[in-house]
Amino acid sequence: MKKIDMIVKSDHFYTMTGEGVGYKTGVAMAIDKGRIIAMENESEILGEYSAEEMLDLKGKAIFPGFIDAHMHTGYGIMRGLAQDTNFWMMYGLGPFNNVVTEEERNSGSKLAIIEAIKAGTTTLGDYEYNMDIVSSFIDKLGARGNLTQLIREAVERVYAPGEIYEFNPEKGEKSLQEALDLYDKWHNKADGRIKILFGPQGADFLSEELLLKIQRIAKERNTKIHMHTQQGDRETYQVVKRYGKRPVAYLKDIGYLDETLMAVHLTDANDEEAKVVARSGASMILCPGSIGIIDGIVPPSVAFQEAGGNVALGSDQAPGNNCHNIINEMKLAALFNKIKYQNPEIMPAYKALRMATIEGARAIGLGDDIGSLEVGKKADFIAIDLRKPSMLPIYTKPMRNMVPNLVYSARGDEVFLSVVDGKIIYRDGKILNIDEDEIINHVSRYPESIGERASKEFFEINGTNAIFMKEEKL
Amino acid sequence: MKKIDMIVKSDHFYTMTGEGVGYKTGVAMAIDKGRIIAMENESEILGEYSAEEMLDLKGKAIFPGFIDAHMHTGYGIMRGLAQDTNFWMMYGLGPFNNVVTEEERNSGSKLAIIEAIKAGTTTLGDYEYNMDIVSSFIDKLGARGNLTQLIREAVERVYAPGEIYEFNPEKGEKSLQEALDLYDKWHNKADGRIKILFGPQGADFLSEELLLKIQRIAKERNTKIHMHTQQGDRETYQVVKRYGKRPVAYLKDIGYLDETLMAVHLTDANDEEAKVVARSGASMILCPGSIGIIDGIVPPSVAFQEAGGNVALGSDQAPGNNCHNIINEMKLAALFNKIKYQNPEIMPAYKALRMATIEGARAIGLGDDIGSLEVGKKADFIAIDLRKPSMLPIYTKPMRNMVPNLVYSARGDEVFLSVVDGKIIYRDGKILNIDEDEIINHVSRYPESIGERASKEFFEINGTNAIFMKEEKL
Repeated sequence: MKKIDMIVKSDHFYTMTGEGVGYKTGVAMAIDKGRIIAMENESEILGEYSAEEMLDLKGKAIFPGFIDAHMHTGYGIMRGLAQDTNFWMMYGLGPFNNVVTEEERNSGSKLAIIEAIKAGTTTLGDYEYNMDIVSSFIDKLGARGNLTQLIREAVERVYAPGEIYEFNPEKGEKSLQEALDLYDKWHNKADGRIKILFGPQGADFLSEELLLKIQRIAKERNTKIHMHTQQGDRETYQVVKRYGKRPVAYLKDIGYLDETLMAVHLTDANDEEAKVVARSGASMILCPGSIGIIDGIVPPSVAFQEAGGNVALGSDQAPGNNCHNIINEMKLAALFNKIKYQNPEIMPAYKALRMATIEGARAIGLGDDIGSLEVGKKADFIAIDLRKPSMLPIYTKPMRNMVPNLVYSARGDEVFLSVVDGKIIYRDGKILNIDEDEIINHVSRYPESIGERASKEFFEINGTNAIFMKEEKL
Repeated sequence: MKKIDMIVKSDHFYTMTGEGVGYKTGVAMAIDKGRIIAMENESEILGEYSAEEMLDLKGKAIFPGFIDAHMHTGYGIMRGLAQDTNFWMMYGLGPFNNVVTEEERNSGSKLAIIEAIKAGTTTLGDYEYNMDIVSSFIDKLGARGNLTQLIREAVERVYAPGEIYEFNPEKGEKSLQEALDLYDKWHNKADGRIKILFGPQGADFLSEELLLKIQRIAKERNTKIHMHTQQGDRETYQVVKRYGKRPVAYLKDIGYLDETLMAVHLTDANDEEAKVVARSGASMILCPGSIGIIDGIVPPSVAFQEAGGNVALGSDQAPGNNCHNIINEMKLAALFNKIKYQNPEIMPAYKALRMATIEGARAIGLGDDIGSLEVGKKADFIAIDLRKPSMLPIYTKPMRNMVPNLVYSARGDEVFLSVVDGKIIYRDGKILNIDEDEIINHVSRYPESIGERASKEFFEINGTNAIFMKEEKL
C-alpha cells in the first residue's frame, strides 16, 4: 500500500470536467503533496493507498473550491455604507473612503476574507493597494490568492465636472514599482498558492504609455493584467474625451485586448463590445451583486460567453454589494440574466457553477491547476453538507438536484469543509489557522472613530443615506 | 416590582414603527402573556418589572419576526426539480407533481417550514391542500400561521391547447366545504396563532358564482381571500377567452377587488392593472425569487406601492425558487427592481424590510397584531447576531448599516433567536419544539421512490432537466 496524505470518500463528486459538471459517484479521491493523484472506484483507491488523513464525507457533496476573481477586500471595513444611492462612489462611499486609514483597511480585508472562506471561496482575487498584508494573511490561512496591486497614474484630487484626469508619470512609476516589488516578494510563494497579477486601475486612470509598459512587464512574467474595463459611464466619458473612442475600441487599437487581459465589469459595454473583448482571448470578470446594487445593470456576460469567452465571478466590494459570498454571486448571475432576457433558460445553474469553478479558473489563468477535480490538479475542494434544509431532499434519479439547490437555495453555511493544496483550512464553522474571534474583535474597534471622522462630510454631501438617517430609514 | 414573563435587553431595536424602521436604542422590551406591554428606557423597565425570563441580547439586533405571506410548503418535497426551464409547470414540475403522494407532500411541508423558521420567518402564509397537517405542525412549533386551503372548481385533466377549463360545481363545492371545515377547526386556534383564509386558486379555476360565494363567506367571517391574481399568460388567456376581459378587469367588474383580497403574483399585470388593484384596497404578495426563476419577470410591486397599496413578500415554492428564506426575498425584491428600473434608489433596503414586517403584516390582515414592536402587539421578534462576518462591522454613526447588511449581506444563519407570542421557538441553530433530525430523516426517505415513479414521464417529456441529465449538466 502506498502511503499518501489524504483520501476523500463521498457519494457525490462534482468534478467539473467536460462540458457540464462531471458528476461521479462510487469513487474516492486520493491526494498527495497537495495534488489529486487518483480518482477511481472507492474500493480500488482503498486497496491501493493508505492515507495520513481519511476524510469520510458521506452525506456531503464535493465541489472544486470556489473562485472569487475580483474583490476589494479592504473595503470590507465600510460594509453597508454606500448602497441604495445614485453616484455610489461620490455620494455613498466618498465620506468614508476619504478618512479610512490603511490599518483600518487591512482589518476590513481580514473580515472580508474570512467571510468569503466561510461561504466556500478558496481562491481570492483581491485587487487593491494593501496586497502585501493580504498576501501574508492568505498565506497564514492556507488559502489561495490571485492578487493584484492597483497601479494608477491619475492624480487623486477633486476634478471639475467634465475635466480630464491629470496624469502624474512619477506617481504612475512609483505605483508600478510597488507592484513589481510585490511581485518579487510574493509571486509563486506560499507553496505556489499566491500569484501576483498586474493591475492598472482602468484605461481612464493611466496613460497609454504606462498601460503598454505594464503589459510588457506582465507578458515577460507570464502573468495576467487584471483591469477594470469599460466599467461605467465615467470611464467611457474620460476615454472618449481623451482618445475619441470608447474604451473597448481604444484598448483594441493599442493592442491591449488579448489573453493577458482579465476585463473586469464591462458594465458600460454593449453586447458587440463584449464580443470584441471575448474574441480577443481576454477573459471577463462578472460581479453581478455589486453592479446590480450600485448601477442597476446586468453586464453583458451572456454575449461574452456566446462569443467564446471565459467568465469568472467576483464579489467586488462590501460598501455596496454587500457581501463576499460567491454562492450569492452564482445565484445573482443566473437570476439577473433570466430577468434581463426574460428567459428562464438563458443561464442555468450549471453555467453559474462553472463560472465559480472551472470557467473561472480558466478566466484567471489558473485553469491548469484548479477549478476542477482531476488527476494532476491541485487539491482545492469544498464539501457541501447535504443535511441542511436548504439542500434537501436529495434526488439522484431521474435527475440530480444538488447543483440547482447549491446555486439557488444554499445560504453559505452548507459549506462544511474547505481544502486548499490538500490541507484543510475550514471545518464545521471554524477557520483553522487563524483566530476568527480576534479578527472580529479587531474590526469592531474602528467604526466609531471612522464614523466620527466621516460625519461632517457625510451630512454636508447629504446623500441618500444621510437623508435616510434623518428620516429614520436606517 | 411587577412580575412578568419576559424582558428583552438589546442595544438595537428595529421596531418598524413610523414610516421608516423605527430604530430605538437604550430601551428594553417587556413582554407578558404573549404581548409587548412596555418598551422604555432599560433602567425604567428593569426598575418596574421582574421577569421569568431575562433575555440578554446585547450584541444582537432585534427585528419583528419576518412574514412569508405566500408559500406552497408541500412542494418542499420537490425542491430543485423544476428550475431553469420554460413551461415550468408542465415540463419541469409535472412529472414529479403527478406522482407525489399526500404523505410525501406533508413531509415536504415540514422541511420547508423548518427552513423558513431558521431564516427568521415567524409567520407562515402556506397555501395548499394539506392545511390541517400544516396547522398541527405550526401549532406544535409555536410559530404563527396565516393559512389557506386551496379551493378549485376546474377539473384536473389534460386540456387541449387553447381549450377552456371545464368547471365541475360539485368539485368546487366539496373543495369549499373542506376549506370551511378547516376554518372551523383551526381559525383562531393555537392561542390565536393560526388564522384561516379562503383560497380560490385563481380567476381561471373557479366560476364567477363560486368566486362570489367564497367572497361572501370570507367577509362574513372577517377573514381574507388569498388568491393567485393575473399570475401568468395562461390565466390571462383563460379569462380573456371566457369573459372577454383580462383578469384584473374581470375581477374589478365582479366586485372582487377590495380590502378582502390578497392578490398573489400579478406576474402578467402591467403597471396600470397593478394600480387598479392597489387603489381598490386589495394587497399584493410579491414572490421575487420564484417568479424570477420560473418566468424571468419582475412583477409590478413598485407601481402597486406608488398607488398606495401594501405589499408582502412570499417565497412561493421550492421546485423553482428554490428556497424558503425571506432574507433572500427581501434582497431579490430590492435588487430585481433596481435592475428593472436601472435605478439603485428605486427600492432601498428599508422598503424591502418593511415588506417582510409591518407592510407585510398589513397586507395579510395582521397589521394590528404583528409586524412591528410596539405596546399592545404580539411579541413576535427575532434577534440577528451582529458577530457574524456578513453583518460586520457595525456602524451607528453617522449612519447605521444594520438594515442594508441584513437585506443585502445576511445569509440566514445570522438569525440567532426567534420568539412568537412571547415564547422562544428557535435559539442558536435549534428549533426547540420539534426534532429537526427526525424531520430530515423522514423527508430523505422519499426521493428514491418518487424518482422511480416520475422517471418514465420525465424522460418522455424530455424537458430541459432531462436533457441536462443526459448532457451531464446536473
